[in-house]
Amino acid sequence: MSDQPSADNAEVRQRRVPDSPESLKAPERDDVRPTSDESDMDAVLQDEDRMERLTKAIPQDKGSLGEFADSMLEALPPRWRNWVVRGLFTVIMISTFTFIVNRGATWLMFLVFLIQFKCFQEIISIGLAVYRLYDFPWFRALSWYFLLTSNYFFFGESLIDYWGIVLKKDNFLHFLVAYHRLVSFALYCIGFVSFVLSLRKGYYMRQFSLFAWTHLTLLLIVSQSFFIIQNIFQGLIWFLAPVAMIICCDVMSYMFGFFFGKTPLIKLSPKKTWEGFIGGAFSTVIFGILLSLALYNRPFFVCPVEHYQIDSSNCTIPLAFQLQDYPVPRPFSFFFKILRKEPVIQLFPFVFHSIALSLFASILGPFGGFFASGFKRAFKIKDFGDVIPGHGGLMDRFDCQLLMGTFVMVYIHSFIRVPDASKLLKQIMTLEPQDQLNIFNLLQSELSKNGLL
Amino acid sequence: MSDQPSADNAEVRQRRVPDSPESLKAPERDDVRPTSDESDMDAVLQDEDRMERLTKAIPQDKGSLGEFADSMLEALPPRWRNWVVRGLFTVIMISTFTFIVNRGATWLMFLVFLIQFKCFQEIISIGLAVYRLYDFPWFRALSWYFLLTSNYFFFGESLIDYWGIVLKKDNFLHFLVAYHRLVSFALYCIGFVSFVLSLRKGYYMRQFSLFAWTHLTLLLIVSQSFFIIQNIFQGLIWFLAPVAMIICCDVMSYMFGFFFGKTPLIKLSPKKTWEGFIGGAFSTVIFGILLSLALYNRPFFVCPVEHYQIDSSNCTIPLAFQLQDYPVPRPFSFFFKILRKEPVIQLFPFVFHSIALSLFASILGPFGGFFASGFKRAFKIKDFGDVIPGHGGLMDRFDCQLLMGTFVMVYIHSFIRVPDASKLLKQIMTLEPQDQLNIFNLLQSELSKNGLL
Repeated sequence: MSDQPSADNAEVRQRRVPDSPESLKAPERDDVRPTSDESDMDAVLQDEDRMERLTKAIPQDKGSLGEFADSMLEALPPRWRNWVVRGLFTVIMISTFTFIVNRGATWLMFLVFLIQFKCFQEIISIGLAVYRLYDFPWFRALSWYFLLTSNYFFFGESLIDYWGIVLKKDNFLHFLVAYHRLVSFALYCIGFVSFVLSLRKGYYMRQFSLFAWTHLTLLLIVSQSFFIIQNIFQGLIWFLAPVAMIICCDVMSYMFGFFFGKTPLIKLSPKKTWEGFIGGAFSTVIFGILLSLALYNRPFFVCPVEHYQIDSSNCTIPLAFQLQDYPVPRPFSFFFKILRKEPVIQLFPFVFHSIALSLFASILGPFGGFFASGFKRAFKIKDFGDVIPGHGGLMDRFDCQLLMGTFVMVYIHSFIRVPDASKLLKQIMTLEPQDQLNIFNLLQSELSKNGLL
Repeated sequence: MSDQPSADNAEVRQRRVPDSPESLKAPERDDVRPTSDESDMDAVLQDEDRMERLTKAIPQDKGSLGEFADSMLEALPPRWRNWVVRGLFTVIMISTFTFIVNRGATWLMFLVFLIQFKCFQEIISIGLAVYRLYDFPWFRALSWYFLLTSNYFFFGESLIDYWGIVLKKDNFLHFLVAYHRLVSFALYCIGFVSFVLSLRKGYYMRQFSLFAWTHLTLLLIVSQSFFIIQNIFQGLIWFLAPVAMIICCDVMSYMFGFFFGKTPLIKLSPKKTWEGFIGGAFSTVIFGILLSLALYNRPFFVCPVEHYQIDSSNCTIPLAFQLQDYPVPRPFSFFFKILRKEPVIQLFPFVFHSIALSLFASILGPFGGFFASGFKRAFKIKDFGDVIPGHGGLMDRFDCQLLMGTFVMVYIHSFIRVPDASKLLKQIMTLEPQDQLNIFNLLQSELSKNGLL
C-alpha cells in the first residue's frame, strides 16, 4: 500500500509546459467549464506542482531507526535494511497487540482511542499543510476541540452503561449522561460559533476548507472507531477476527502476488495483481474458519464484555458459538450414508459469519487501501506519517480496518444483536403509568398465548 | 444575508501585485509553512481571483421576472423594482407554505424533500464549478446516487412505521425494511467502489475534493432535513413554530436595524447591527409566546402525527399543551394577594419551551446566516442560486432553518419525547422466551410496588 508515486511525477514533469505569464494568468472567457483541453492540462500540472510543494512538510517514513541502530544496519544492502526495519516493527506491533488483547476489553478500548487520536492528527496535519494554516494556533485548537466533542457525542450514549456506576455518584457527571445529546449539541454550537467568529478576511476559503476537512476526518475516524469499540463490547472475537482477517489478507495477497502475480488489478496501485487478490481471498476465508475453530469455545473471546467483566463464570455462551446440527447437502451426504452415519455435521453459526466477514475483508477491504493510496497520490505524499519505522503513519496501516469495523457493526446489528432486556425495562419505567400497564397486559396475553405463562 | 462582496474585491484588486513568472512560480524553499509575508499575500490574491473565475457559472439572482413582467416594472426606479419583486415572491412563498401546512404532515414532508433536493443541487453545483468537474457526467451521477442512498439510510429507520402497512404486503420491500442498515451499507459500498474505480490520473485531487464536498453536503442537508421531518412527526407545531420564529427574527432584526441600527455587530456581515440583533431577539420571544397561545389547543397542530392521522378524535393532547397551575414567584404574587386570589397562574409547559426555542432562534440562528455568508464570500458568489427571484437560491433562505431544526430535534429528545410503548413491545417480542419472562416478572413486581397492580 506504499507504492511510490515518483514515477508518475517524472512523467508529469516531462510533459510540463514552461511557465509563461500567459499560461498562468488563465484566459478570461465566458465558458468557465474547462474541458480536457490544453489550458486544463496546464491547470492540472500547476495543481500537482503546488500540492507537492505544500505537502513537503508531512513527515515521511525513511525506514530509519536513529543513528545507533542505523549504523548497525549499515552493512546490509539498502533493500534488505528496509526489510529488517519493517520486519522488526511488525514483530513489535504484533507482540504489543497480543499483550493488550490479553489484558481485556478496557485496554483494547484505550488502544483504539490512542490510534484514533494519532490518525486524526495525521490527517489534520495534511489539511493544515495544504491550506497553509499551520500558523493559526487558535484555529488548530478548534479541530481538537471538535475531536473531543464528537467523542463525547459518540461514546456518551453507548459507554454510559459501562461507566454507569461511577457516574451515578456525582451529580454533575450524571447531568452529562442524562442530557447527553443536549450537551453535545451545545458543545458543538460553541465550536461552530467560535469558527464563525474566527473567520479572517482573505482566509475565508482556506478556513472553510479546513473546517470541512476537520468534519470529514471526524466522520471517518471518530464514527468508525466508535463502531469498532461497539464490536469489542459484543465480544472480543468480533474485534479480533476482523482485524486478523485484514492483516492475513494483506500478507497473503502480497505473497501470492510476489510468487504468481502477472495480471495487473487496478491502475491506482500498479503493484496489485489479480493473482494476489484471489489468492489473498482464498487464504483469508480458510484463515477465518481456522481462527473461529480456535476461539469459539473460549468465553474470554466470545462472551459480550458486559457479562464477562462482571462475572466471568456467569456468561452463557451466545447462540452464535453454540454447536448445532446442520444437515449435510446432497452430494456430500453420500459419504455419510456409506459410513452408516446420520448426514448431519456439528458446527456453530459463527463459522458461517466468519466466512461472510472474511469475504468482505478480502473483496471490499482492499478498496479501503486503494482509496487511501489514491488520497496519498492526490496530495503527492508517500505516507501519512513516520510514526512506525518501515511502515509509515498509523493511517497507512489502518486504512482497511476502518471500513471493516463498520461492516462488522452493520453485520452484528443485522444478524446477531438482540435488544438488551435490562435496557428495555429501564425504558418502560420512564413511560406514563397507563402505558406501563398497557405493556404489561399485552405482554401477559402474548406470553399466555405462547404457553409461556 | 445578501451583502455584496464587491467592495472587498475592489480593495483586494488595488493591492494586487502584477503577475510575474517569479511571483507565480513560488520560491523553492524548505520552510513550507508560509506566514503572512509577501508571498502568502500573493497566494491569497491568486486564490481569490481564481475562485471568482471558477464560480462565474453559478446562476445569481438578478431580481428579474422574465421580459413581460420586467417591462411592466420598468417605470419604477431600480431600488423599488427589486423591492417589488422581493415582496411579491415573499407573498407567493408564504401563501404556498400556508396551503401546504393546511394539507397536513404528508404534504409538508414532501415539501421538505423537495427543498432538500434543490439545496443539494445548489451546493453540488458550486463544488462542480470550483473543482472544474462539470464534464464528468458519471461522477456527477455519483453525487445523486449518494443522495438517494443517504436518504434511504436516514428515513428508512424512522419512516418504516409510518409506511409499515404498505410495506408488509410485499416481500421485497419488507427485506428493505428488515435489513435496512445492511442494505444502506451495501448501497454505500457500491458508491464507494465506483468512486475508487472512477479515479482518473491527474484528477485525483479534484475528484477527492468533490467526493468530500458531496459527503459534507449530505451531512449538512440530508441529516438536518431528516431531523426536521422527525420534528413534524412529533406534532406540526414543533415544525411550524421554529420556522416562523426564524422568519420573524430575520424580519424584525432587519426592521430594528433599519430604524435604530448604529453599532456594527460582526465584520462578516457589515449590515448587521447590535440594535437589530437585540430588537429581533425581543420580538421573537414575544412572537413565540403569542404563537403558542394561538395554537396550543388545536389538536391538528399539537398532536403527534401518527395518532392524529389514524384517528383525529382519539388524540390525547400531549402534556406539554395541557394547562397546569404554576405558582407565581414572589414580587408578582403580591398583586394576587391584593385581589384575594390564589397566587397561581394557569399555563401550559409549551410556553416555556417556546421561549427556549425563540431564544435559540434569535441568538444562535443568525450564526447560521453568518456561516452561509462567509461561505459565499469564500467562493466569491452573492447567492447560492436564482430559483426565487428577489431572494436568490433556496439555501439563501434556509441557512438558519437547518441549525434550528437540529436544535428542536435535540430539545424534543431531551425534554419531550418518551419511548414509544408499541415499539418497546415489538422489541420485547424479538427477545428469547426466557428474557421475555424475565421482563414480565420484573415489570410485575415494579408495578405492584408502585400500587398499579
